[in-house]
Amino acid sequence: MVTEQSLKKIKAVVFDIDGVMTDGSLIPLSDGDLLRVFDAKDSFAIRVAARKGLITAIISGGKTEALEKRCLHLNVKPENLFLGARGKLAIFNRFCEQNGILPEEVMYFGDDIPDIQVLKACGIGVAPSDAAEEAKEAADIVSEFPGGKWCVRHEVENLLKAQGKWTFNPDRFEEFY
Amino acid sequence: MVTEQSLKKIKAVVFDIDGVMTDGSLIPLSDGDLLRVFDAKDSFAIRVAARKGLITAIISGGKTEALEKRCLHLNVKPENLFLGARGKLAIFNRFCEQNGILPEEVMYFGDDIPDIQVLKACGIGVAPSDAAEEAKEAADIVSEFPGGKWCVRHEVENLLKAQGKWTFNPDRFEEFY
Amino acid sequence: MVTEQSLKKIKAVVFDIDGVMTDGSLIPLSDGDLLRVFDAKDSFAIRVAARKGLITAIISGGKTEALEKRCLHLNVKPENLFLGARGKLAIFNRFCEQNGILPEEVMYFGDDIPDIQVLKACGIGVAPSDAAEEAKEAADIVSEFPGGKWCVRHEVENLLKAQGKWTFNPDRFEEFY
Amino acid sequence: MVTEQSLKKIKAVVFDIDGVMTDGSLIPLSDGDLLRVFDAKDSFAIRVAARKGLITAIISGGKTEALEKRCLHLNVKPENLFLGARGKLAIFNRFCEQNGILPEEVMYFGDDIPDIQVLKACGIGVAPSDAAEEAKEAADIVSEFPGGKWCVRHEVENLLKAQGKWTFNPDRFEEFY
Repeated sequence: MVTEQSLKKIKAVVFDIDGVMTDGSLIPLSDGDLLRVFDAKDSFAIRVAARKGLITAIISGGKTEALEKRCLHLNVKPENLFLGARGKLAIFNRFCEQNGILPEEVMYFGDDIPDIQVLKACGIGVAPSDAAEEAKEAADIVSEFPGGKWCVRHEVENLLKAQGKWTFNPDRFEEFY
Repeated sequence: MVTEQSLKKIKAVVFDIDGVMTDGSLIPLSDGDLLRVFDAKDSFAIRVAARKGLITAIISGGKTEALEKRCLHLNVKPENLFLGARGKLAIFNRFCEQNGILPEEVMYFGDDIPDIQVLKACGIGVAPSDAAEEAKEAADIVSEFPGGKWCVRHEVENLLKAQGKWTFNPDRFEEFY
Repeated sequence: MVTEQSLKKIKAVVFDIDGVMTDGSLIPLSDGDLLRVFDAKDSFAIRVAARKGLITAIISGGKTEALEKRCLHLNVKPENLFLGARGKLAIFNRFCEQNGILPEEVMYFGDDIPDIQVLKACGIGVAPSDAAEEAKEAADIVSEFPGGKWCVRHEVENLLKAQGKWTFNPDRFEEFY
Repeated sequence: MVTEQSLKKIKAVVFDIDGVMTDGSLIPLSDGDLLRVFDAKDSFAIRVAARKGLITAIISGGKTEALEKRCLHLNVKPENLFLGARGKLAIFNRFCEQNGILPEEVMYFGDDIPDIQVLKACGIGVAPSDAAEEAKEAADIVSEFPGGKWCVRHEVENLLKAQGKWTFNPDRFEEFY
């Protein structure tokens, strides 16, 4: 069960992309590139988490220039951006080591079969409302919101509230862009 | 409470973009640009407002060439187009001064944390049905329609109706394109 | 009231684009162009209508190269493609004259204020389920389906069924591409 | 009726694109190209099917470079990729011959009039929840999920489960990308 206490221990939030930071849509272009659909309110929450001192990271099988630029724009540090990932658990463990944190100090967001191991290994696994059944079963929290529309926002907001960090200095909103 | 009287006092309508004029979707391109999804009926209402003599303005954290062209196409004057905005309240106050109007003569549309101060400072604050809870609390009107789909249309239409301006000369429809 | 008899008299189907052949979404590009979202099943019905001998036409305020190519691909004849339309009634009347048909022999699809006059002038006016209230009132049929998703398909299919033309020769499907 | 037994006999899964692998959206570009919206979870299931030894194929009226690249990326073999198809039944029969399988050993996914013949000719015909009425009637399974969002995922997953192939070696997830 997820308690206030377990939320307070979280030092990092880590996200899958397709179906988590997006609604799973993939729009192929003629050059082989793929467009994806992110959400402004989800993005805001990820930036707030980074500004409030949480480590943010992305582990995704996808790998495009658009994704890389988008993730960096969300203030994810280059060394915590794992695109083109094959076998997420090994990457997840490497991420923890490199950042000097324990798996149980990480909240991980995943929605499908390749996320199951990390959902189980991390401290708090989160699955969107429209995740695959197997991902929901592996998760500690099944969000009431779907991927790409408020799952990320709602759960990151709840996490920050539990840590007393969902607070805003109206004179310094520029920090969140 | 929003009365006919308060609607009649409004001289300007000011919009946030993401989650207000769009459904919040952000589609990153490989060159770092972002695509956004606007709606034809919302756009029609903004053009009607401008034609009927209301001042229209945009205050958004986003800043792309696509946004600039879209906003100008909606008949927003270049001097009332504030893209890449950081700290919306200061910009809002500057907008009022430059246009010789009072904050209480402005209807402002916003959907998230960075909009709260302006939602409170303006005459009539409007939040889409899918706005962040904090924005809804700060707003005078919570629309029954979501951002990017009819929130703007419905509330601007209501405003113009209260002012007797939702009228169309069938021989001059070309004015609204 | 729309009867079998009135459906049988129809010789032409004429469409607005935004909110009728699309869901109203407008996606601005940095060069000022706009992307729009059409639907495959709607498109199929328009092609069938053309192949079965109905005159098809488009009257839209929008005007882009993408729209022009899309409409021609749907087998709309270049002379019946009116993009960048300002004042739709005059264009509608001109279309009828040029094609030697009467307004009452036309089924017209429209969803917003600029469509009202044509919705009233034509034989059978159709508004999508998500049309503006004024367009619904001016229409003879309010579809149970929204713009861009099956309004066009459903109503054109019904029209062709009433005329005994919703029939397919399985050996000649290629005609509908 | 579709039984465990009939599912076990299936050796190939064949897909229409528009309205099946996508939600039917068509986004025209100014160069005449069309964008389409696929889904990550559907795509995952198609790749798993290929990896587990099922023959996968695409028969679609559409034909663009983006489609070709997308389908090949899903591990569909070039010789089983039929884009720009006119008259799907003849192509379907040719596909069966070339692969040395019988029509009744194929599960086919289609959503509209041009798919009816193949839906009837194949072993198990599947129509998405939002397919045309005629396609639903011709199909053996009407999915509870719509095209472009989980119809493909759900039915391919069920097929693979019936065949004991919906299993994953956590050390070899890279196979499914």
